[in-house]
Parts: sequence; structure tokens; C-alpha cells
Amino acid sequence: MAGKFQRILYGGDYNPNQWPEEVWKEDMRMFRKAGINSATINVFSWAKLQPSEETYYFDELDKIVDMLSAEEDDIVMATSTGALPAWMVKRYPEVARTDYEGRHHKFGQRHNACPNSQVYRKFMVSLTAKLAERYAHNPHITCWHINNEYGGECYCENCEKAFRVWLKEKYKTIEAVNKAWNTEFWGHTFYDFDEIVLPNVLGDGIGTEDTAFAGLSIDYKRFNSDSLLENYCMERDAIKAVNPDALVTTNLMGTYKGLDYFKWAKEMDIVSWDNYPALDTPWSFTAMTHDLMRGLKKEPFMLMEQTPSQQNWQKYNSLKRPGQMRAQSYQTLAHGADTIQFFQLRRSVGGCEKFHGAVIAHAGTENTRVFREVSQLGEELARLGRHILGTENRAEVAMIFDWDNYWGLEYTSGPSEDLKYVDQIHQYYRYFYEHNIPVDMVSAEDTFAGYKVVAAPVLYMVKEGMKEALTAFVKQGGILILTYMSGIVDQSDNVYLGGYPGPLRELAGVWVEEIDALFPDQKNQMIFADGREAECGLVCDIMHLEGAEALAVYGSDFYKDSPVVTRNTYGAGSTYYIGSDPSEEGIEMILDKVREEAGISGASGEKARLEIVSRWNGEQEYGFLMNFTDQVLPVPERFAGKEDLLTEKAVESGETMKKYDVKIVKM
Amino acid sequence: MAGKFQRILYGGDYNPNQWPEEVWKEDMRMFRKAGINSATINVFSWAKLQPSEETYYFDELDKIVDMLSAEEDDIVMATSTGALPAWMVKRYPEVARTDYEGRHHKFGQRHNACPNSQVYRKFMVSLTAKLAERYAHNPHITCWHINNEYGGECYCENCEKAFRVWLKEKYKTIEAVNKAWNTEFWGHTFYDFDEIVLPNVLGDGIGTEDTAFAGLSIDYKRFNSDSLLENYCMERDAIKAVNPDALVTTNLMGTYKGLDYFKWAKEMDIVSWDNYPALDTPWSFTAMTHDLMRGLKKEPFMLMEQTPSQQNWQKYNSLKRPGQMRAQSYQTLAHGADTIQFFQLRRSVGGCEKFHGAVIAHAGTENTRVFREVSQLGEELARLGRHILGTENRAEVAMIFDWDNYWGLEYTSGPSEDLKYVDQIHQYYRYFYEHNIPVDMVSAEDTFAGYKVVAAPVLYMVKEGMKEALTAFVKQGGILILTYMSGIVDQSDNVYLGGYPGPLRELAGVWVEEIDALFPDQKNQMIFADGREAECGLVCDIMHLEGAEALAVYGSDFYKDSPVVTRNTYGAGSTYYIGSDPSEEGIEMILDKVREEAGISGASGEKARLEIVSRWNGEQEYGFLMNFTDQVLPVPERFAGKEDLLTEKAVESGETMKKYDVKIVKM
Amino acid sequence: MAGKFQRILYGGDYNPNQWPEEVWKEDMRMFRKAGINSATINVFSWAKLQPSEETYYFDELDKIVDMLSAEEDDIVMATSTGALPAWMVKRYPEVARTDYEGRHHKFGQRHNACPNSQVYRKFMVSLTAKLAERYAHNPHITCWHINNEYGGECYCENCEKAFRVWLKEKYKTIEAVNKAWNTEFWGHTFYDFDEIVLPNVLGDGIGTEDTAFAGLSIDYKRFNSDSLLENYCMERDAIKAVNPDALVTTNLMGTYKGLDYFKWAKEMDIVSWDNYPALDTPWSFTAMTHDLMRGLKKEPFMLMEQTPSQQNWQKYNSLKRPGQMRAQSYQTLAHGADTIQFFQLRRSVGGCEKFHGAVIAHAGTENTRVFREVSQLGEELARLGRHILGTENRAEVAMIFDWDNYWGLEYTSGPSEDLKYVDQIHQYYRYFYEHNIPVDMVSAEDTFAGYKVVAAPVLYMVKEGMKEALTAFVKQGGILILTYMSGIVDQSDNVYLGGYPGPLRELAGVWVEEIDALFPDQKNQMIFADGREAECGLVCDIMHLEGAEALAVYGSDFYKDSPVVTRNTYGAGSTYYIGSDPSEEGIEMILDKVREEAGISGASGEKARLEIVSRWNGEQEYGFLMNFTDQVLPVPERFAGKEDLLTEKAVESGETMKKYDVKIVKM
Repeated sequence: MAGKFQRILYGGDYNPNQWPEEVWKEDMRMFRKAGINSATINVFSWAKLQPSEETYYFDELDKIVDMLSAEEDDIVMATSTGALPAWMVKRYPEVARTDYEGRHHKFGQRHNACPNSQVYRKFMVSLTAKLAERYAHNPHITCWHINNEYGGECYCENCEKAFRVWLKEKYKTIEAVNKAWNTEFWGHTFYDFDEIVLPNVLGDGIGTEDTAFAGLSIDYKRFNSDSLLENYCMERDAIKAVNPDALVTTNLMGTYKGLDYFKWAKEMDIVSWDNYPALDTPWSFTAMTHDLMRGLKKEPFMLMEQTPSQQNWQKYNSLKRPGQMRAQSYQTLAHGADTIQFFQLRRSVGGCEKFHGAVIAHAGTENTRVFREVSQLGEELARLGRHILGTENRAEVAMIFDWDNYWGLEYTSGPSEDLKYVDQIHQYYRYFYEHNIPVDMVSAEDTFAGYKVVAAPVLYMVKEGMKEALTAFVKQGGILILTYMSGIVDQSDNVYLGGYPGPLRELAGVWVEEIDALFPDQKNQMIFADGREAECGLVCDIMHLEGAEALAVYGSDFYKDSPVVTRNTYGAGSTYYIGSDPSEEGIEMILDKVREEAGISGASGEKARLEIVSRWNGEQEYGFLMNFTDQVLPVPERFAGKEDLLTEKAVESGETMKKYDVKIVKM
Repeated sequence: MAGKFQRILYGGDYNPNQWPEEVWKEDMRMFRKAGINSATINVFSWAKLQPSEETYYFDELDKIVDMLSAEEDDIVMATSTGALPAWMVKRYPEVARTDYEGRHHKFGQRHNACPNSQVYRKFMVSLTAKLAERYAHNPHITCWHINNEYGGECYCENCEKAFRVWLKEKYKTIEAVNKAWNTEFWGHTFYDFDEIVLPNVLGDGIGTEDTAFAGLSIDYKRFNSDSLLENYCMERDAIKAVNPDALVTTNLMGTYKGLDYFKWAKEMDIVSWDNYPALDTPWSFTAMTHDLMRGLKKEPFMLMEQTPSQQNWQKYNSLKRPGQMRAQSYQTLAHGADTIQFFQLRRSVGGCEKFHGAVIAHAGTENTRVFREVSQLGEELARLGRHILGTENRAEVAMIFDWDNYWGLEYTSGPSEDLKYVDQIHQYYRYFYEHNIPVDMVSAEDTFAGYKVVAAPVLYMVKEGMKEALTAFVKQGGILILTYMSGIVDQSDNVYLGGYPGPLRELAGVWVEEIDALFPDQKNQMIFADGREAECGLVCDIMHLEGAEALAVYGSDFYKDSPVVTRNTYGAGSTYYIGSDPSEEGIEMILDKVREEAGISGASGEKARLEIVSRWNGEQEYGFLMNFTDQVLPVPERFAGKEDLLTEKAVESGETMKKYDVKIVKM
Repeated sequence: MAGKFQRILYGGDYNPNQWPEEVWKEDMRMFRKAGINSATINVFSWAKLQPSEETYYFDELDKIVDMLSAEEDDIVMATSTGALPAWMVKRYPEVARTDYEGRHHKFGQRHNACPNSQVYRKFMVSLTAKLAERYAHNPHITCWHINNEYGGECYCENCEKAFRVWLKEKYKTIEAVNKAWNTEFWGHTFYDFDEIVLPNVLGDGIGTEDTAFAGLSIDYKRFNSDSLLENYCMERDAIKAVNPDALVTTNLMGTYKGLDYFKWAKEMDIVSWDNYPALDTPWSFTAMTHDLMRGLKKEPFMLMEQTPSQQNWQKYNSLKRPGQMRAQSYQTLAHGADTIQFFQLRRSVGGCEKFHGAVIAHAGTENTRVFREVSQLGEELARLGRHILGTENRAEVAMIFDWDNYWGLEYTSGPSEDLKYVDQIHQYYRYFYEHNIPVDMVSAEDTFAGYKVVAAPVLYMVKEGMKEALTAFVKQGGILILTYMSGIVDQSDNVYLGGYPGPLRELAGVWVEEIDALFPDQKNQMIFADGREAECGLVCDIMHLEGAEALAVYGSDFYKDSPVVTRNTYGAGSTYYIGSDPSEEGIEMILDKVREEAGISGASGEKARLEIVSRWNGEQEYGFLMNFTDQVLPVPERFAGKEDLLTEKAVESGETMKKYDVKIVKM
């Protein structure tokens, strides 16, 4: 099992086009010194490759490809379609986007093309086809990277028309649209597809985050995700037409809201993504995002971008501390990456990213802390590839992450504006992270086969088939974790009538009669059977047991003593239902029970110690031990005597690890 | 005196059109069970009633009317003109509004029609005429409800042209406009009405709240209020043309800034309004708003909407606590309502209000707390109607509330951006509320006859006739309460020269030389003659006595020891002038004196106890006692032995009331 | 040396055009009483002077000029072009601006003309020419005041075209533009000047403060400043064509970001400016701004506007305390003003500035505190002119203030969004202010000849010639103070490669390898050689000594013990480099050393006491002593026995000064 690559790709975004050729040679020298074996090129060169509608220019790119090929580098070839050439916008203004406020943009920035402009599509495919023709058989081109960080939205007339076509394909009749969006409300009935307008500020959008018709706005999100995906597929197909074996990806952005990445992943040969945690991003959050990216295809992924040190676009762009970049890179590998790539290899001289960290600083010297740390890692990765590449992560716990739910939950008007999808998912993920219990982030379409526990926080929208899949899972012995705001609506954001949590009511064995919303300074308590108590708030379900048992009851307010956490035996399994947003301690108390029932123990017994994650290749397991805490921590005894791939020595009994220390132990 | 209704209307917004007919029958069964006797229908059905420019469809509405008629329900018939059909906006884009930013809107949301679009007006009147023709003689239709929650603004070209016409009618000549708006300032002189543009962000608007020319912006507010009122009148007239006896209203929104409700009330047969307090809205504020709505016509009003439990559009949508909805409903009746109506009777399945509370929840069952509370109230109201309907509220204290002042005060550039009109009014109202002293909220055009005290906080704009009315009131023995920021400008926002408070200077017996503005963390003190002291801030008038006596002087700053609270004897009455924004204690100290001088004692001597309000029918008085505090409170002894209409028993001596307990005592 | 005026102009904005003529006579009487000898007229009268495209009307202005001439007042004649007439915008919409959001404005507000509209330019020049023709030979017109508070930006098509022309003149070729803006980044390459679009929200603007291409956005700022300056010059030339000796100015606004005032000052005969400190503006900030305005031409300036008491457009418009206006006026004179002028002489009756303070209040009486204070000052100034007029301020310390750096630093994406140019400059200025060390605020093009110390905080952009000038200065014995974020980019915002601080590296003797950014609650420490310690934060340079000595090292983090403050001997002088943003105490510790090395002692030894500033006429020095603290302070003994021009008595030994007390001592 060697994965998609022959070695761990180590490199990143490289823009020699921004530099005179004399610099290129120096780049090559320094890359060799740093152990860099790969470069992502041609990310934003459209204007150079195609100086006018009629002409193309590949000489410079040829030179770059030749140089890297000669160096035996792995080339990640981007297609340059992520930023429009100025001449194109001037000649065909429709290729630019119209924003949420209804303003048609002129030339500027990047990620600026209307995905439904036929002009853009024509030029985009032509360029990619030409690139494929020229380079797709170069054996040094290991991977194709289409466009860049797809995202954003367009509200122009072309998109409006395309949306109507998309709706017609989905719903067939206008009556079906009216039913799906419940347009009888506020007399929004449409009699013709042409009456439908995009839900921006000039339509049903309310501010930038809310909407009068969630059904409409969610469908727009789906449409926009599909439109950009169609762009991706057109480029991919242009490449595959020349070389069907080409490995094609585009760089995703973790929990980015705009695109349904599970749908995208089906069209991608390998997932790649860009990881930019801030100083105050919890390590558990980054871990979750890696698991999500791995979960998209349940396969190893590429880390397409991270910064060697600092970003430039955050409010306060902290340097990475000594050892931090290395430890972050190993966390990335531990969670399933087969590449470590940076943005960027050489810092730009101008433009808005000139203060973004790079392997080679403006100083241009190898005599920097950052370069030394990059080099150390390069040396290590060269030794690790044969062990790690293509190995898999195994988990007994699955968590559902679903973009439809993301959109649906955050579009709700009520009960509380503080309900944020990703935060909700993360607070449950964190429990598993802190107990070193591996988690697969899975799609709402998953079958959940093979998992002991499925956690589905705020599963607000239950789409077709999900009830059946979850029921089968529990019936066969699985443990399902549900929370407040679950089972409320169908795929069109219409409520399941008959009582919350709708299709999950039987599984949960509870009926939620009312949902209270608490002000941020209001709190309630969960009182557990054993007398322990934890704070809760945000929303409070007032519920009735319908077969479930109460594990905890409310501690105050008029629903004091009524159930807040319940457990329902169903078939061979059980469902936990958490009726209010718990404190970290509350989650701990609940999930400890789940863990006990499931018979799952993490890689270490205790919370908040070393992060320990395993990859295995079917025979051999590799345990990644990382210390992200400020304390010096002991290595658990079970690792003693086993080989650490990094030191190539056996772990000693009683060994300790400082902040950012890493071990990769052959188990 | 039976008022406008035969019984207390109990019901609310009902949208059977959103549901299949099999649900209707269940609705009827549950309404009967809950004591509901009324339904407001057809609020947003334009798109259904008129599927195209040429065709109308009334079959479904006929069925609904027939069903409710058969049930002997009181029908409140709305006209559906509050939300445009999609086909109309597509065919005639001018019917949609242009917003403050100058963006012409496409189809979306509601309350979206340009009031000066002739196309909109034509269609609107046609629809209402057809509805009137069809239903206006149905004896079950108790009331007509035009449009819905009129509000918002339009800045399109049609409105711009209509504004010029409105100005021409008001001012006759362009010279008069220039004088009114003092256009010589900043060289804004107009030579032709066609040069005038609407004061939005593309014109004289500054941000969304300020303006370079208050005179212009205030006139726009008046014009916009008049434009919408003209829409209302056109619909009303279409109904009256068929049935001159029809009772016609539209639902107002309390202290909503956009419309001059005193002007509107003159065109309405009865005032109705929608009451949506949040968890943190003071009960005194809700009481004030009821008094304002009653004051618009000095008659009982309809409570057209309230939620049985929670809202969906607040940040944190709290449930109403057990008993809270009932107590709130009785507060509403106590302050002059003759109906209690909910939004909504059945919770929508989709759309942005699907989490708005309703009598019938998504669960669809009568087995909910909310349904039980609604049913209890229904049973009680059925017994109360014969006592309460049409009875009046009597007050010796009047407070002036005036939309011109609202607009004028909040458009001032200086002295402090924290001067908010409604908050200023409410803080004085609260004193009377907390002493159970009834208040009439009155128009600036009132004669004030019959009142002992008139409070006119921040009477910034003194329009024609007001000086004379107030002078006559005081001369004949009344007590007038004035504050800082009074008597500054005329109806066009031009300053009365010669010294503040301008036309009120003689009445107040003071001259205000300077107005200091304090930062939020800056404070001064009011030192009273008896040595007591209270904090004040926000603005500090520096004033000279011109006949008045100082009741309190400043405690610090360079105007220490100069007067801050004064009293001036004038004719048989007196004027109090409060020169700085007092703390709650400061208001207490000042108004205690006023109360003593006026010889007014509230229904209870002490502050912050039961709310006690009376309605009477000319012979019989009914005292509403309500506990909105967290304490258990004793019922004052004077109520002992008298009948409580709710229990139908005599109040016992020593009885106490818990939070949300209510008594209605026959005095 | 008598300066540009025969007496200290004392007066201000006067708008008799807003008032009936009967008021004018009263104005004259009161001006005489207050010692007012000057009036600024005709600021916003375009609509009156030119009622239509074809007609002009000067009768009223003639009368006003005649009246003031008869009174022997100094007239400051404005040209009225700061606000468009309504008729012009109606007939020629292009004269109005298009804003940053891309919205073309209709008629409203002021400062609303597109500077590149040929229509506007034609009308503007015509009006000014006519004014010049009519009035330029009136001997009472002491000064011409063009337009008003130039500022703002326009993003219309005319400006876009003019920008391309401006770029062509600057860069000659499109290749040079591409290189300057590093357009290879994000594939922004332009092949034709016509492809370039303005950097607003529809182009490369990000939000309202950021940009994707700083080079482009900085060039737009330069272009916009030049466009308005071209407007100014066109009017100036129209006046000079009639009277080449006319004294021409326009009123600037201190540290206003939009215009490169050093470039403007070259075209102005005298600098004038408007000083509007808020209650919480530090006196040191106001002093710095005066020094900047004086520094523009290194000559005395006009204080064109200040308020006698309060503003109207701040959030909280405090009154000036008794004596405060007088003390502020003397601070203004002390720092180089030859005039004291108010906005405004009579308070407007309407419009958005009606609550702006004025010499004559709405009360219209001379019996006000403000009028009395104005009169006292008028009496004093009449006596002071012969001493003060035209005298100069001398300084041994220069601080560089540079608009290119202002724009460049604040456009950077990274390292910290809290880096604000003016705040950075002010915190170093404050040290000198508090030690009564005179400072000249100088241009980046200065030669620095004659200064002992040059402070150049955050000298982010080092333009052509600056390295040489600074090197020569230090080589010849000067002391240069540099900080973090210096020497990073050239005039086009492209980084100097090879290591920060680029061209200043040799001078500073350090190499900055990395720049850490700290969160607001993160802090580091500067540990000085003598063990003293001060807090620092915001950014932390990690640097290597290359000849410099470390004066202080970091106290914590991974760069603990590495240098944070350094000193490098270079030629006969030295350079201090401050690698992190120090607390006030930190600045004190560093600059104390600088002061000692430079041998500079302020007018008083201690910090935070009296402000003491001197003007001298080549022979005689006048010491202005002012107390802006809340304490009673002793007058330093060295002033004892010398004449105070205000009391015309000798200062006594042991005398003290209360808050806002002022002495002008003949040294």
C-alpha cells in the first residue's frame, strides 16, 4: 500500500515567473539543501500564458517545467484559471462576478470569475486543454491542481438563468418548487421559473447571513457549489482527455462553508487542502479538519498549503514558534496526509501576500531559523515515506459533517443566533480528540458500517435515507449520539410535522415539546443521576420520555427536574439525546458513559495529554506522539522499547516530551 | 358602552391556505377547545388570489370564509397587499422598492411595494375592491385588516417625483422650500422643484441615521408616512365604497419610527397593533406602548398580534414562562385592548417564521403547555367580555409623544449621539408606571384639557399652536414638565432665535445659555434644596433663572451650583424644567414633588410592587392587579372583600400574589 | 520680520448671506466689541453667485465686501467651489462623485465634485475668475481661501480615464506599471493602460481599508491628491492672473490621510488649517499637528478654523471649559500661527451645523460666557501682534511625517492590523512634547541640515534619495531614531530584498530576520543594560547585531535575550533602532539616552508639567507658558523678573499657574 505518490511530496507553491531567471538557479540550490522535492507551479499565470484572446505563450513555463524535471522534482501543475486576465474582463465584462449586494465587479483580486459565464468557461477549457496537450505526458508532473481555492458566489444574470435551469432539472415543475420552498408563506408563489430571482440582498437575502426563504437560499448554495464543481469537472475532463491517468485535484479549505466538499470529492482523484490555523485555533480543531478532509474520500490526502511561519492576512500574524511547524506537519501526516507543501517557497516582492511566510525569506538567505526548520523536516520526511505513504487511519467513532446541515442550521431564524454549525461539531469532536480516540468525519450519506459510535450533533436536516441508515446502525448495535436541534426539517427546510425530533423521535425515544433559547449570560444545569452537575445553555429542549431513560435532568427554571440528557435502548444499540448545549465538563460526563458502553478506550486513558494518533498499513501500525501542551509530559510506558522512526532509536522507559516534541513509534 | 365588538375577539393569524384541507377540520376542533372565537385570514395571499394580471381566484378563500362563518367565528379579513406577487414584479419592476443605498430590489421578502408606483396602486385597489365586493357584506367579517405592518421606505424615481409634488403642495414656492430647509447653508439653494433629490445615501443622507439637512429629511419622513397612508386610504375607501359600515384597521407597531401614527389613526376606525416584547423589555415599556396605541384615538384598541410563546426573529428567542402569556394578555386588556389575538394559530411548516410560536405547534397536538395556557385564557376571556369590552382608561397625567419630535431629535447633529427619543420618553413614563399612576400618551396637537400634569420630555420641536396650547394649560392650573433639548426648533428644524428654550422660555422661566454634552463615563449631580443628591449626565443645560426657582443645582464642573432643576409658577399652574438627564433616583425626586403639587396618588403608594390599572364603564370600575416581579406580593387591603372576576370569589384579606398572578377586581 | 499679515487676524467664517440684512449691522457692532478684525466670507455661495449656467449675481457679495471694507476688516475671501449648485448636478450629473462602493451620487452634502470632471473644472475656473476680476484688487481682501477642506475620493469613469493618463505620465510604459505593482502576482498583468481599473470595492479594494495591490492603491491615493491639487492650482492661477500678489491658501486638516500636504504646501502661499480637538484628544497631539502644519512650509501658518466652544459632529460635543479656548489659541500661536479664526462667527439657524459653536449664539446676545471669552482674547491679541507676527519656531529635533508612508504602512496586509501611522508618530512626538523639546515635523525629502536628532518612526517606505540623505545626516554627527517596520519597501511598495531594514541596514547596524506580531493581550519586555524594564508589544523584530550594540534585550518568548533596542555608531553620528512597540515608559528610557547623547535639554527639565514653547524673531525670544494639567504648577524660576506680555508685568518669583493659565514671557 503505497498511496498515490512515490515519496512524500515536500515543497509547495513556487512562482519563478515572478522572478528573474538568475534567481531560479539559487532556488534550486536552496531546495536541494532543504530537502524539497516538489513544486506547485503555474497557479496564477493566465495573463502571462494567454496575453490576448488569440495568442498563447508557454516559453517561460516550458523552461520552468524543464528545470524542475531536470532536478527530478515532483511537479504539481496548476491550471491558472483562478484569476482572470485583465484583458478578458475588459473585453467581456460578463466574466467578472456580481456580488451579494448586486454590484457587478470590474477587474481585481482573484477567484473572480462568474462560474456560469459561457465566455469564462470557453476560455478556461481552452487554456486547460492547451496545458494538458503540452504537459500531460511529462512524467515529472505528478499531480494536476485545478484553479485555486474554489469559493465565493456570483449573483449575475447568467447565474440567475443557470439557477432556473438547475431548479428545473431538480424539481421538474414550478409546483414542486413552490412546495419545496413553502412559497405559500408570504405569498411567494411562483407561476413560472423565470419569476425566480437569486436570494441576495435585492431578493430574499436578509443582511448577509439570513434569508426569508431558507429553502431557496439552501438551493442557491447547492447550485453555486455545483456551478463551481462543474467548472472543476470541465477542466478535469480536458486533462483526462489527453491523459486519463492524470492525478487531478484542487485545493480545498477545510470547513469552508460555501462548497459541499463531499460532493466535490467524488470528482477528485485525491483530496488536497490548505491548512491555516491561527495562534488561537485549538489543535483539536485542526485535527478535526484533517479528519474531515481525509473523510471526504476515506483516503490519504495532500496538504497542499501551510505556511512555514506566519500568515499575512490574519489580524495578528504570529510567528510559528520553534518546532511548531514541524509538530504541525506531523499532526497533518498523523491524520492522513501523504504530502507536506507550503505556501510558499519564496516570499513575493510585492502584492498583498508579500508578508506571508515562505521557505526563502526576503533576505534570500538559508541562514534563517525558518529555513533550518524546513530543512530538518525535509531530511526526516525523506526517511519516513516508505513507512507512512498510503497507510490508513482507523476509527471506531464516526461524526457526521454535512454541508446541507451547515447551511440549514445557520439559516434558521430562531431559536438562537449563536448556533454555529462547525463550533457545535467541534465541541463534541474535542472530547474524542482529548481522549486520543480516532474519529472519522463522515458524510450524511454514509452507511456507518463498522463503527461503534456515530455522533451527529445538531442534525437539523434529515435527508432522504438518513433515518433508515441511522436506524439500521442502531438496531445492529451501534450507539448514536444526537443533540438539540435535530430531526427538525427535510432537505427543503420544511419541518417534519408531528413533534421533534421528527424522523429521529423513535430512535431517541423522546418528544421535544418546546425549545427554549437562553441569553448568553443565562445558564441552566444538567444534574446527573449520581448527583454530579454540569452547566448548560444556549438552547434547552423541554422534552418527554417516550421510552428513553433520563441520564440527567435540568437544575433550574420552570422545566427543572425534566430530562435534559437521555438514553434509549433500540434494537441491539442505543441512542443518546442531549437536550441542551453542555459545558466542556458536561460533554465529558455524557461521552464518558458512551465510551464505557461502547467499550472504546483511546490511545491514552487521560485527557489533555499527548496527542497520539495511529496510521497503519494493514500489518504495521505507526503511532504518532505529539506534545501540543505547555507541559513536559511522560511517554506512556507501552511505547517503551519500540523504535522511534525519527531518532531511529528505541523509546526509553521514563522518557518525556517537551512542547512540540514528536515521536513516530513503530508499534 | 360595549365598544366595537360583541365579544373579546380571541384568535389571531390563521393561514389554512398553507395547509391541506384535511388539517382545517382539526384546526376547527382545536380552536373550539381553546376558546378561540376569531381568525385573521388572507394576510399574504395575493399571489394565490391573483395568479396573473388578468385572472383572480377566490375559491379557496370562499371555502375558508364559509368554514369560519359556519363556526360563528369573528373573521378579521386582511387584504393581502403587504407582499407583491412574483409575476407582478417580473412584469412591472417599478412596483418593487429602491432602498436607502439606491439599489432597486428584485422580488423578495414582504412589505416590498413602492407606495408611489401607479402600477402597484392600480393592482392594489383592484384586489381590495374585488375582496370587498365578494365579502364585505358577510356578517361574520367583523373587521378589515388592510395590508400588514406598514413600514419601510422607498427611494425610487417615482417616489422622488411624488416627493416633489408633495413639497409643492406643502410649500407652494421653491423659495419657501429654501427657507424651510435653510438651503443657503452649504449653498444648497434650489431654483426648481425638479432639482430636489431624495435624502438617501446618494443625496443628503449621512450613514443611515444622519443627514446634512434635517428639514429635508424630516419632510421625507412625513412624505413617506403620507405615501403609505395614502395607500391605506385607497384600500379603505375601496371597502367603504361597498360597505360604509365596515370596521377598518391596519396593524401598527407601537413606537415604530417610520410612520406618524397620530395622523394614521385619524383614518382608522379602530387602532390595532402587534406587541412583541423581548425577555429584557421592561414591563413599563410595554405598558407605555399600549397607552400610546390607546392614545392614538383615545379609544380601546385591538391587540392584533402577540406570540403565545416565543418569537423567531430576536437574537435569543426565549419561551414565555408559565403564566407569562396570560399575564401579558391581561396587561394588554388593562391598558385598553378589546381583543387578544395571536400570531399565529398554527406554526408554518417552512419559511423564515417557522420557529415563531403558535397556538398549535408543529407537533400538532393539544397536549402542550402552550395550548393549555391558551385554552385557560380563552375560557376566562369568554366570561370577561361583558364587563370589560369598550370600557375606558382614565388618566390625570398626559405625556406627549410626537413623531415629528422623534425624527427631529434623532436627526440632530449634536450635542450627543446618545439622545434617543423613545428612551427619553420611557424613562419619565416609568415613574408613573411604577407608582400606578395612569398615563395618557397624547399627540402634540392635544388641548390637554382635563389633565393635571402634562409631561413633555425632549420637546425639541415646537410646532405651530403648541406654545399656545401649553401656555393655556399651565395658565389654567396645569403642571407642565419640560426637559433639556426643548423648544429648540420649529416644524422645519430651524432654530427659534433669541435663546433656548425658545417659545417655552417664558413658561419655564429660564434661559438656557449653553448645552454641555457629557461622555458616557462623565457624570454630574443634582443637589436638591433638602441636600439629597442624584446623578445626572448625557447633556447639561447651563441656565439662568428668569422667574423660576431652582429646585436643584449642579454638584460639579464649572457650572457647579447653577440651577439644574427649576420650577416656575405661571398663571394658576407651574412648569418644571429639568436641565440634565437624571438617574432613575433623580426622576423620582423631581416627580415626587410634581405628584405632591398635583395632588395625584397612584393606585398604590409604593414603587415597584403590583401593577394596578383600572378600566371603567362610566359606572363600574375594574381593577387589574398583576404581579410582574419575582417576589410574592400582598394584595393591598382596599381590594379585600371585592369580587375577583377571574375566580368569581371575593379577594380575601391578606391574600398574596405570585409572579404572573392576575386579579380583576370589581371595585 | 512681520510675516504675511499686518495684524493677527482674529475672526472666522462669516455667512451674512444666511441672514437678513438687519442682522448684519448687529454683527458689526458685536465684532467690534469682541475685537474681531477679520471675516472669512463666501465659503458656500456658489448656488447664489451663479443661479444658472448663464447668469451670475454678485450684488449681495458686493454689499458684504463693502460693509467689511468700511469696517476696515481683513477679508478672507473664499471661492465657494466646495459645494456644487443643485442645478449643475441636475444638468450635468458627471460633476458629482462616484463613491468607493461604485455608486454615482446625486445632489447632496458638500465636497461633492468630481475633480476630473471637465464640466466641473470649467465652471469652477469661470467662477473664480469672475470673483478675482471683481475683488482681487480690493485692499481689504487680505487672503484668498480656495474651495474648502479639500478631501474625499471619486471613482467615476472620468477619474478612471484620468488615472490612466496620470499613470502613463509617471510610468511611460505598461511594462513599467506591471513591474511597479508586481502584477505578475495573481496574474494581474496589464497589456494596455485601458485595462487598469480604479482600486475600489469593484476592483482591487478589500473592504474600505485594504487592497490586493498596495502599489496600485498608493498610486491612486497620489493621483487623487494630485487631482484635487490640480483643482486648487487652477483656481489659484485664475486669481493670480488678475493679481499676482494675492495671498492664496486653502484650509487643510492636520493629519488628514487623503492628501499629501507637503506636495500641496508647495503650491500654497501660506498654510492654513482647521483645528478640532475632541475632549479626549491629548494636547500633545494638537501640538504635533500644529508643528506639522508649520513644517509644511517651515513658516508661520493660519489657524483658519477652531470652535469657540463646542463642535456638533462628534459623538459627545463637550463645551470648552472656561479659559480652554484661550489657552488652546495660545498653544496655536506658540506653535507658529499668525491668525486665530473661528468657525463660526454666528450660529446657523438650520442645517447640520446648527449646533456648532459660534462667537454669537442663537440667543444673539453678547451676554454669554463664550462671547466674553472671545472678547478678552481679542483684546489681548490686538496687543500681541507686533511681538509675535512672523516670528519663527526653532528646533533641534526633526520628525519625519510622510504621506506615502502613511498610505503604505496602513495598506500592508500583515503583520498586525493595529499598526496605525499617526499613532506611531505621535507616541514618539509625545516624549519631546512632555520634555518641552521643540520639534519640526519635516518631509521625507528634507535634508535634515541643522538638526541634532531625526526621529523617523515606522519609516516603512524608503523612497529615492532618502537613504542618502539620512546617511549624510548621521555621518555628519546626527542621531537617527528608527523603529520596527522600517526600510521594508520602495516607493512602489516592493520589498527591498536582502534583509530588513533594507537600505537602512547599514545605518542601523542590524539585520531583522523575522517580525513577530503579538495579540493585544500579549506582551514582551525590554530589559535594559542597567536592569530597568519596560513593556513592549504589537510587533517584535527578531534581529541580529551587525555592528550595533544592544541597549535592551527581550525579556521573554523564544527570542528572550536577543536585542530589541540597539545603537549603532556611524560616521560621526549614531542610529538607534527600536525593534518593538514600547510602552510610554519604554520610550522614555530610550529617548532619555538619545537626549543625553545629543545634549538636548528641553525648556523645563521635568515631564508632564507646563507646556513651554518659544517663538523668536531673530533677536527676541517669546516664551509661551501654558498649563494644560489639572494641577497648580509653579513657574520655573528662570522666568522670574521677565515681562509677561499678557499682564504687562514682570513674572514674580514663586508664581504659580492654574489649569489653562497662560503667560507670554519676553526672554
